[in-house]
Amino acid sequence: MNIFDRLIARVIETRNPTAVGLDPRPEYIPDFITKNASQHFSDPFQAISHAVFLFNKSLIDALYDIVPAVKPQVAFYELYGAHGYDCYLKTVRYAKGKGLFVIADAKRNDIASSAQAYADAHIGRVALNGQARALFDADFVTLNPYLGRDSVEPFLEAAREYDKGVFVLVKTSNTGSGDIQDIDTPDGKIYEIVAEKVKAWGGEPGKYGYNRAGAVVGATHPAQAEALRARMPNTFFLVPGYGAQGGTAAGARKSFHKNGLGAIVNNSRGIIAAHTKPGCPHTGEGFALAAREAAIKMREDLGFNYEDCQ
Amino acid sequence: MNIFDRLIARVIETRNPTAVGLDPRPEYIPDFITKNASQHFSDPFQAISHAVFLFNKSLIDALYDIVPAVKPQVAFYELYGAHGYDCYLKTVRYAKGKGLFVIADAKRNDIASSAQAYADAHIGRVALNGQARALFDADFVTLNPYLGRDSVEPFLEAAREYDKGVFVLVKTSNTGSGDIQDIDTPDGKIYEIVAEKVKAWGGEPGKYGYNRAGAVVGATHPAQAEALRARMPNTFFLVPGYGAQGGTAAGARKSFHKNGLGAIVNNSRGIIAAHTKPGCPHTGEGFALAAREAAIKMREDLGFNYEDCQ
Repeated sequence: MNIFDRLIARVIETRNPTAVGLDPRPEYIPDFITKNASQHFSDPFQAISHAVFLFNKSLIDALYDIVPAVKPQVAFYELYGAHGYDCYLKTVRYAKGKGLFVIADAKRNDIASSAQAYADAHIGRVALNGQARALFDADFVTLNPYLGRDSVEPFLEAAREYDKGVFVLVKTSNTGSGDIQDIDTPDGKIYEIVAEKVKAWGGEPGKYGYNRAGAVVGATHPAQAEALRARMPNTFFLVPGYGAQGGTAAGARKSFHKNGLGAIVNNSRGIIAAHTKPGCPHTGEGFALAAREAAIKMREDLGFNYEDCQ
Repeated sequence: MNIFDRLIARVIETRNPTAVGLDPRPEYIPDFITKNASQHFSDPFQAISHAVFLFNKSLIDALYDIVPAVKPQVAFYELYGAHGYDCYLKTVRYAKGKGLFVIADAKRNDIASSAQAYADAHIGRVALNGQARALFDADFVTLNPYLGRDSVEPFLEAAREYDKGVFVLVKTSNTGSGDIQDIDTPDGKIYEIVAEKVKAWGGEPGKYGYNRAGAVVGATHPAQAEALRARMPNTFFLVPGYGAQGGTAAGARKSFHKNGLGAIVNNSRGIIAAHTKPGCPHTGEGFALAAREAAIKMREDLGFNYEDCQ
């Protein structure tokens, strides 16, 4: 059993291979929350961070029984400095306390002891006064491969030691992803070479057949996803780009095996900002209900039922 | 005039193209500082963050008149969560207050609005309640190019708007840098293709001939650095890997033009941990003097005098 086995068990229980992206842009947060926070804190960075946590908490409360995972985008917490990281830590803890898996979308990368520091902070332990202390303690973290194997190794080591996982960027969902990732070489495109490296980095597969090194494969590239799915049978995929970025359920399904396993599809704006859509009946304090309804709709759109897996 | 012109003016004034890496690993911090911090703060993350700031402050006081820049490695602040980021912010402000340029070694990368959030936090402005507020406000930030042009653009835009600069990873100093960066393609190696993109991304050169998109080129790869120097005449290089990682002054000099301009060489451990070297006379409270002497020695080792530039 590894962490992907536990995640998959929860995907089957909820019949929902979805991660909700907690990318709390200020314009997604209902006014009553930000106003309330501003009344309590005069420092604007502290006020917005408090508002973000209240927003996340309500979303988590409304979603934890129907989705298996959340994916906080770390940039939207770093944006508020120390207060933002305090909010990030509280968000991770609250989500885990509700039984959600947490994917830290940090896209971290560095060399040697710097990579080690990021690994310690996000999925490992921080050594202080001779004691190893968990800091953020997410379940998964996203990584950038440009610096090579030795930059990824500290994360893999932490993953093995603390039963965590990583998702390495292979083919990202953005329009510029081709600039480097699609460059042709005699051995295939760069993202295909990265895919081969990720396969080699992952180690032993768990009960459901997935090793600890997952891959990020955008829903906006269905043909590439289908080929990568065949090429990397033991690699679990994190699939961004569904919804607002233009990825469809049909495109996202290319990242799954025939049994409906092997991937989790992220949706951020489509769920957490559902209440801002024109015509949405759940505005103001009902915003989390809009998120829940959007998550249920996405589950239906993806259309997996896992009857054979129960 | 752009920020590289101002940095170069200071390099010439100090006769020193060096950045001191503020990578405050706990083992580099003298006991008297950590013990003092532990007495003031019971939270170990807060205590170590306070110790790191005191350590950095003494180093900055001992170095600001002889080096033009510091390069905090963000990983070593993120390692301590919210307290670490508070320390990071105070370090950046203190260094800038002393006239030092600050290179945020963050290696950030993400897409669309997430890249924008990182750019806003590190070199731009954060919009809060209709006001644009500076957060970390470093002078430069390091970036990873794997996600392509659109992931770098928000940083370039912030650089143009607030007179900042970026350093894009081209050829890194670590042993695994070749895994992706050295892959051969019909158009050259990947890092050479990235080099061409960085050239195109940089925009107009300033007074000394450098545009806003710099490149990270490791001192551990002198042959590649020499070729990149010729290929990218208008790109300013940040050169890590000197000293502890095995890069020499001769290797680092390959990243400079004949006039001694065009690059800045980082040294972290060799300067900030100089007091821990066996036989160093400046231990305990004299640790910052050891750093100053190491910085002077490095300046002599690099051997630029800029007589023609005065």
